Amino acid sequence: MKEFLVRKAKKEDMKDVYEMIKGLAIFEKMPNEVKISPETLQKDGFGPNPTFHCFVAELNSEIIGFTIYYYCYSTWLGTSIFLEDLFVKEEFRKQGVGEELFKKVAKLAHESSHRLDFHVLRWNPAVDFYKKLGAIDLTKTEEWHLYRLNDEALNKLFS
Amino acid sequence: MKEFLVRKAKKEDMKDVYEMIKGLAIFEKMPNEVKISPETLQKDGFGPNPTFHCFVAELNSEIIGFTIYYYCYSTWLGTSIFLEDLFVKEEFRKQGVGEELFKKVAKLAHESSHRLDFHVLRWNPAVDFYKKLGAIDLTKTEEWHLYRLNDEALNKLFS
Repeated sequence: MKEFLVRKAKKEDMKDVYEMIKGLAIFEKMPNEVKISPETLQKDGFGPNPTFHCFVAELNSEIIGFTIYYYCYSTWLGTSIFLEDLFVKEEFRKQGVGEELFKKVAKLAHESSHRLDFHVLRWNPAVDFYKKLGAIDLTKTEEWHLYRLNDEALNKLFS
Repeated sequence: MKEFLVRKAKKEDMKDVYEMIKGLAIFEKMPNEVKISPETLQKDGFGPNPTFHCFVAELNSEIIGFTIYYYCYSTWLGTSIFLEDLFVKEEFRKQGVGEELFKKVAKLAHESSHRLDFHVLRWNPAVDFYKKLGAIDLTKTEEWHLYRLNDEALNKLFS
């Protein structure tokens, strides 16, 4: 593969990123969960107070992967980084693109918050990739579980 | 118990909140993980762009509980709310204080992001409390696991 480039995303990349978000949701077997639009991504990521940040991988003017992260807060450590999404188009996998994208975000965590958190589905083969980079499965080691009140539960709570 | 009040936290509440953060870490059996200070909480939560938000429960001028949340980002839904911490001092538990604190944050999620996420340790008895309020254990139902690169792993990755 020719040399790819990892760079900060621009507002106009959000259409491509949106298509990849849908691709990731299909891979995660939850294609109907994507309620966002390219316009919302443009608004939320590129205003005066962006609520997320994004890097893209580019090859011959094609966006072939992306990662999205945001600043979260730990009452133990302070401001910290959460990696929300990482995706490489199928035909460009296993060539180091994902690692470059991941390292861009990990570097920021290394320089600032000293930890990087993210969620992975248990059966996702990327688990091995993350483990090779040093990730620990805190659900296994410390028994942290992710809980959610979804729209239905919130409606019920306030009906 | 007399009537308690749930209100937005003030900068000067952070010393009390800090003590309760330590209390929660002891309860979670990880007392040495708290590296934050009351000053950092004051700086991060009360500047022009606060990285977290906080409600406290007050009774007779004593802070008896708190909850901290922040705005996270879902590439499926957009800006969303993550509940980072919820704690009530031991002697004031089982009297509705935790529920009032939780509902303050859930109400915001209901009005804006339509979902509320948080992490709970598998063995924490509060699991039943969250389930009663409608929470689903996504680690069980969808097999989401929490992964982390800690300080040591990040140092290794960039050494």
